[in-house]
Amino acid sequence: MKGIGRKGLCLVLAGPSGGGKTTVARALLQREGGLTLSVSVTTRPARPGEQDGVDYYFCDEDAFARMLAGDELLEWARVLGRHCYGTPRGQVLAALSEGRDVLFDIDWQGFRSLRTALPGDVVGVFLVPPSLPALEARLTARGDESPAEIARRMARARDEIAHCAEFDHVIVNDSLEHTVDLVRAILSAARTATVRLSGLPEALAELGV
Amino acid sequence: MKGIGRKGLCLVLAGPSGGGKTTVARALLQREGGLTLSVSVTTRPARPGEQDGVDYYFCDEDAFARMLAGDELLEWARVLGRHCYGTPRGQVLAALSEGRDVLFDIDWQGFRSLRTALPGDVVGVFLVPPSLPALEARLTARGDESPAEIARRMARARDEIAHCAEFDHVIVNDSLEHTVDLVRAILSAARTATVRLSGLPEALAELGV
Repeated sequence: MKGIGRKGLCLVLAGPSGGGKTTVARALLQREGGLTLSVSVTTRPARPGEQDGVDYYFCDEDAFARMLAGDELLEWARVLGRHCYGTPRGQVLAALSEGRDVLFDIDWQGFRSLRTALPGDVVGVFLVPPSLPALEARLTARGDESPAEIARRMARARDEIAHCAEFDHVIVNDSLEHTVDLVRAILSAARTATVRLSGLPEALAELGV
Repeated sequence: MKGIGRKGLCLVLAGPSGGGKTTVARALLQREGGLTLSVSVTTRPARPGEQDGVDYYFCDEDAFARMLAGDELLEWARVLGRHCYGTPRGQVLAALSEGRDVLFDIDWQGFRSLRTALPGDVVGVFLVPPSLPALEARLTARGDESPAEIARRMARARDEIAHCAEFDHVIVNDSLEHTVDLVRAILSAARTATVRLSGLPEALAELGV
């Protein structure tokens, strides 16, 4: 017997903006074969350096509304009452059915919706920052936000962290290397989870059991 | 915040006798700090080289019956209608409450009983051998069993494997190193599981959330 066939899984990486999520996601994508990033669609304007189709699919409100109406989004949310973010359905379902895993950089609302849409296929990991003052310092250092915007982001960070217990795993992100190791372990473990081993009956038959 | 307090967990390694379980368990114990082996009590006679209190606690039927009557066993079973095996309760509960993890080398009956006794604290990993003829060859090579005994063990191996889907994780044990890596990943992942993070409320309070 040469291994057991399995379905792909959705690995959600959540945590407050500025908490190191994107850096961890980048390291994971570099080191983990078979893991691809789910690119979200958003109505927020691109920041300097962001590329359409790589960081996000950027679109206007009308285009977003058409996707919603066409049931093309697996989950979506309007954040801080302003910009919309969503996950295109087709790319995710295609990956899962081919046994490939998909990484998501979404918030707790997105995680909750994704889990509802794809029960059993979602593993949620929440990265808690070791300190809130350090988080605020990082947000301020970006230099592209007003003090009022920083205050809004910090309020949102507190709200985000307050939902961490809804996730399957919680990690204190005090070291990039350690966090990446832990998330890779969570991914490896999730890949051997019996609920995901769709090929188990065939594997046992081949073994003669 | 310096990490989140947690309860210990029970890591069960199951699979047919001769399938490499004991070798994997030994490697895990060498490499994983904070993991200790649960030593079972048994009425079967010691094999050459086995030490009382290390490999098993060896005892007679009367002593086993007294432990049962005193509710000192977390789980127990009579295997192949002959020898009894059981897990002393005290050592396991002490470890879990101190946040230490306990490794179990038990069969599917033991796993099922342990999960019933300690719901939420047990992670079950089943090692499937890559081939049954290879398993039979290894059992035969031990040289201490009659052909009838080998046949009984092979029948028991088939029965054991037929229960693999009850476990949380299933691994094809075709490479010691790969299997040990996967079980270590499962252990790391289980240690960050939200259900196990008993110190999460305190950690969030410390963070000011």
